[in-house]
Amino acid sequence: MTAQQISVAVLGASGTTGGELVRLLLGHPNAEIALLGANESAGRTLGELHPHLAGSAAGDMRLEPFGAGGGAGVGALAGRAEVAFLALPHGASAHLAPALLEEGVRVVDLAGDFRLPAGAYPEWYGFEHPSPAWLDKAVYGLPELFGRQVAGASLVANPGCYPTPVALGLAPLLAAGLIEPGAIFVDGKTGLSGAGKSLTEATSHNATEESVRPYRFPRHQHTPEMERALELATGLATGVSFVPHLVPSVRGVLVTCYATAAGGATTESLTECLAAAYAEAPFVRVLPPGGMVDTKRTRGANVVELQAAADPRTGTAIVAGALDNLVKGAAGQAIQNFNLMAGLDERAGLPATAVYP
Amino acid sequence: MTAQQISVAVLGASGTTGGELVRLLLGHPNAEIALLGANESAGRTLGELHPHLAGSAAGDMRLEPFGAGGGAGVGALAGRAEVAFLALPHGASAHLAPALLEEGVRVVDLAGDFRLPAGAYPEWYGFEHPSPAWLDKAVYGLPELFGRQVAGASLVANPGCYPTPVALGLAPLLAAGLIEPGAIFVDGKTGLSGAGKSLTEATSHNATEESVRPYRFPRHQHTPEMERALELATGLATGVSFVPHLVPSVRGVLVTCYATAAGGATTESLTECLAAAYAEAPFVRVLPPGGMVDTKRTRGANVVELQAAADPRTGTAIVAGALDNLVKGAAGQAIQNFNLMAGLDERAGLPATAVYP
Amino acid sequence: MTAQQISVAVLGASGTTGGELVRLLLGHPNAEIALLGANESAGRTLGELHPHLAGSAAGDMRLEPFGAGGGAGVGALAGRAEVAFLALPHGASAHLAPALLEEGVRVVDLAGDFRLPAGAYPEWYGFEHPSPAWLDKAVYGLPELFGRQVAGASLVANPGCYPTPVALGLAPLLAAGLIEPGAIFVDGKTGLSGAGKSLTEATSHNATEESVRPYRFPRHQHTPEMERALELATGLATGVSFVPHLVPSVRGVLVTCYATAAGGATTESLTECLAAAYAEAPFVRVLPPGGMVDTKRTRGANVVELQAAADPRTGTAIVAGALDNLVKGAAGQAIQNFNLMAGLDERAGLPATAVYP
Amino acid sequence: MTAQQISVAVLGASGTTGGELVRLLLGHPNAEIALLGANESAGRTLGELHPHLAGSAAGDMRLEPFGAGGGAGVGALAGRAEVAFLALPHGASAHLAPALLEEGVRVVDLAGDFRLPAGAYPEWYGFEHPSPAWLDKAVYGLPELFGRQVAGASLVANPGCYPTPVALGLAPLLAAGLIEPGAIFVDGKTGLSGAGKSLTEATSHNATEESVRPYRFPRHQHTPEMERALELATGLATGVSFVPHLVPSVRGVLVTCYATAAGGATTESLTECLAAAYAEAPFVRVLPPGGMVDTKRTRGANVVELQAAADPRTGTAIVAGALDNLVKGAAGQAIQNFNLMAGLDERAGLPATAVYP
Repeated sequence: MTAQQISVAVLGASGTTGGELVRLLLGHPNAEIALLGANESAGRTLGELHPHLAGSAAGDMRLEPFGAGGGAGVGALAGRAEVAFLALPHGASAHLAPALLEEGVRVVDLAGDFRLPAGAYPEWYGFEHPSPAWLDKAVYGLPELFGRQVAGASLVANPGCYPTPVALGLAPLLAAGLIEPGAIFVDGKTGLSGAGKSLTEATSHNATEESVRPYRFPRHQHTPEMERALELATGLATGVSFVPHLVPSVRGVLVTCYATAAGGATTESLTECLAAAYAEAPFVRVLPPGGMVDTKRTRGANVVELQAAADPRTGTAIVAGALDNLVKGAAGQAIQNFNLMAGLDERAGLPATAVYP
Repeated sequence: MTAQQISVAVLGASGTTGGELVRLLLGHPNAEIALLGANESAGRTLGELHPHLAGSAAGDMRLEPFGAGGGAGVGALAGRAEVAFLALPHGASAHLAPALLEEGVRVVDLAGDFRLPAGAYPEWYGFEHPSPAWLDKAVYGLPELFGRQVAGASLVANPGCYPTPVALGLAPLLAAGLIEPGAIFVDGKTGLSGAGKSLTEATSHNATEESVRPYRFPRHQHTPEMERALELATGLATGVSFVPHLVPSVRGVLVTCYATAAGGATTESLTECLAAAYAEAPFVRVLPPGGMVDTKRTRGANVVELQAAADPRTGTAIVAGALDNLVKGAAGQAIQNFNLMAGLDERAGLPATAVYP
Repeated sequence: MTAQQISVAVLGASGTTGGELVRLLLGHPNAEIALLGANESAGRTLGELHPHLAGSAAGDMRLEPFGAGGGAGVGALAGRAEVAFLALPHGASAHLAPALLEEGVRVVDLAGDFRLPAGAYPEWYGFEHPSPAWLDKAVYGLPELFGRQVAGASLVANPGCYPTPVALGLAPLLAAGLIEPGAIFVDGKTGLSGAGKSLTEATSHNATEESVRPYRFPRHQHTPEMERALELATGLATGVSFVPHLVPSVRGVLVTCYATAAGGATTESLTECLAAAYAEAPFVRVLPPGGMVDTKRTRGANVVELQAAADPRTGTAIVAGALDNLVKGAAGQAIQNFNLMAGLDERAGLPATAVYP
Repeated sequence: MTAQQISVAVLGASGTTGGELVRLLLGHPNAEIALLGANESAGRTLGELHPHLAGSAAGDMRLEPFGAGGGAGVGALAGRAEVAFLALPHGASAHLAPALLEEGVRVVDLAGDFRLPAGAYPEWYGFEHPSPAWLDKAVYGLPELFGRQVAGASLVANPGCYPTPVALGLAPLLAAGLIEPGAIFVDGKTGLSGAGKSLTEATSHNATEESVRPYRFPRHQHTPEMERALELATGLATGVSFVPHLVPSVRGVLVTCYATAAGGATTESLTECLAAAYAEAPFVRVLPPGGMVDTKRTRGANVVELQAAADPRTGTAIVAGALDNLVKGAAGQAIQNFNLMAGLDERAGLPATAVYP
């Protein structure tokens, strides 16, 4: 893999995350899109599936039948792409990634298939993991916490949209003893793009506008991922209770975390701890005390905003984080991981400024 | 006060809450709008200030100079209205209500001026309360919990939009010993109508669409109101940590409350406790286990939706509540209180069905 | 049919328009919902299909198999309901309505099946009309223009959402000679609720937010309905060119009509003509010169706002109209027709004030 | 002016358009932001005024007092910047631009001050133009129609957001005789970002959501600009009647134009005419027959989508166009003009792909 021009494949290019990957890769100075894969949509062009990309350089590329069930063509893929981004439904990567890896293709998996210990899959994802050996080799791709491991990894598990700001916001505070590792409550809010292209009454505009509603709690599969990310980063076990909500937006995830303050934590000390942790991180913005994170200021950009405050009345430490779930929460972070894997500037091809308003 | 036709005044009729009060009172079978009051807008017609009411029976009524500073005309008001709804900025009612009460006018105050103990005002509202004696006589107007006291009250403090679902959702569980009275975390989400007609960059459409952001925490004035409502209802002291958020909606408040489960609480026992508590309450809908509250299903209606769930992994009890902040969170609840004060059917004039979608 | 309590059936109660009919009928002082009909949804309760109506008096009513293909049970229906509202897909009423009428049930059809001359159906709706004889007896139910005929009708064709404001806005001006009957251009904008519960990528929130787009032009089936409504009202033939657009809203239709001014039309004379035409119409609001119609001021109410202006530079007369497509554009207007048919006050059960903001 | 690195000033950098200019210029390979100017906001940093740019390379740049009244410092500016973008309120550029030009600074004016003949300013903009001599030298900066003149211009009048798609969509058809030059009706729809940072009830989220409404017609100042652009491009005089509307969106302008078809125009011939006209234009996408333009597919990109259709029933030709009003409708187009003026690739620094969804 040279740093000059790296051939990449995007499998699952027909979905929302796949489309965002292609959009960002088209502007990447060192990536060359060699192959787009899909299942049902194989044979159609990128432009038909993502009309906003119809006019792009890849608009007329035809999707090829590499997808969830695409083990067959793994050899062929290996000859064409050095790195594969897997934007497939949960459960598909667990089968496909090992085959690709064995052919020497490095993999960034955007599904949840390599984020948890093997034992957690039946409970949280509903399947027995088929390749626990690869689970052990997978690196959890949160660059600001695990960038060094990512650089040398063959298989990167790209984090979920909710765990990303939770882990970035809490890990430094846990490590510094400014919050207790016990009970942590995470309240998440997301726009609808996290649901991808699924069409249900719940994702319709008529049901979404003027609607705020929780969903799938307390069993959301990002819950154990938050605990695991925090443990990987700090060695400490936590117990996270997580409630996600849908709000009438398209992009944007905001998490608000409530923990018991420790070590005399104040708004200032919490903020300084985060600011110090991310002083060199190009994509993390720690707001000064009183600053309020805003998903809108992250739209289209690979950034996460963080803020922290102590509530001395109740001894609580509160951390809020915001990001664009399709960029820093998915496709952008995957490219950030790719950059590290390829020895490129971490920022290559990644917008750091939101399209605002 | 006879149950037939009761003359009412709405002071602060130029604001958003005032407009909603008038809209609902226009459809009330037993209320007669005798007087609309305002400060700067005195002299203008209701229809000029609220164009959606221009075609109504009150569209040509001219607002009169009874408002925040309107002590002068209190005597005149008393001759025209039996009950006054005060939809004035915080701090104004504290001065005006006592004068009205002394003239024999019963008062429903929609501001925060009679919701807290006197000692809390400097810290949370920034003023020294001018009439602590009346504070002691004020009844906290959450009909489902304190309906009996409301019926006989001269001065009702209409609850805030956030404390309403928090108190309704947690009080029965606290009383039943199904949650611990210690630390309680409340995560609130609101549309922009709670900000009324204030015009700032934050309330503009350009800043709101695709934006989710926390605000004014951990110092929101509804925090001590939640604690006090719970203590009034259960006798138990709690410590609430509250973070409110703005979401891109107009109407709708959703609260998600996290508490430590107790007494072997399960999703079923939490749900049953709430269902039993509100079996006779016409405006509270307790959803079955797995049901998800939705602000959209409350829009325009005087209802609150509640759901409860246990998270046994972490020993947490979670309660979510949704309402329309202008109706059950303000004007509708005020009219519900009025109905009780006047000996009317609690439901008189109040829509129980949302305008959906 | 007595004016006291009239039994009604709603067929197609599972859809968006059907739900709105039930919501409004629940608050109607003279209507008693005797029967709810559906096809695939037969057997389910109203509350399951429309959760916002779960708590209402009809929430536990079970839908019965009277729907698009429901000719079989017509006799049974006739014994239970005096009036049937048909909120079925286009093409179904054309078969069902005659059967009901022959059993003595009066019918308000909310589909397009009785709005056009028989010859127009193949071209605009794609089917040969099965009962042209009933077409001749159907009354076009625009109460402000054809109220007298409605009162005596057995079969009322409830107008479409776009033709309603176009006909109300242009008919008086055409009749007065203030606009030319030749070419008329109508630009329509609608929220997504007009698409009902259909689930396509186009109706998803992700595709709708921040999207403005035309659709189905120049072949929208409301085009000939506009021409026919104008001809029925004025005897004049027009040629309408119509382009509808989807905007990111749920409720609300706005039409902007461009015609050649005639007879020395000025903004004032156009406005006066409309104001005079609707001086006695409780649901039509003609705005003064310079006033701008707004869909939001009609939300949830059975009103239409109209404004007119001359553009003397180009000799154009411009008329804009706004309404809530589910109320004055569908269910509300159907009830207004029902009121006239039943000899009730035209306004019975119909909200005239919008839920705003 | 060398093609390598060109120093630019942005005056009016505190506004919405100014912010978008800076955002795009930050990613431009050949532009160096030498100076940011403002009036009231002088002294503040870019990041304070545009928090989404706080983390950018220009985030800490302080705005300097060059703005509407900034003639005094013109000499100083000339020494620092080769090109000035003026994103000032209407009327300010008319005074400032001549002073800059006389110092040798080339100017791209984003206001309306150099778009019309001198005689039109009193009527449409409410002021007497102070420098009619410069008006004659200004080039109307619609690159696809007047790119050659732009390349050599010192003063470019950057077009308005509505006239851009109207002129691009109609000029080729007029020139080819496929539409009549007489009466043309233009129906415009815009999101709220066109209103910039003005704070009124009309621009609040509460008034905008679920609202569709016309505004400022028939006197919108873009009307004569449309006529002039068409005349500049074709030599033909037209009479445009224009009604703009606000829809609940932030970015996005869509225009729908109705003209009398001529020359046997069909959907196919209209489409082919447009496709041929823009075959070499990188930022114009002509959709095939039946394709529907969508503002959402242009968000954040410097593109305009066009579609055309004949309505043979009425002899009408309909053209619809969509763009992002802040990019191709303002800042992006200004940079496209800058590229041409500087002899750069027209596409330099300009995103051609929308951020979607």
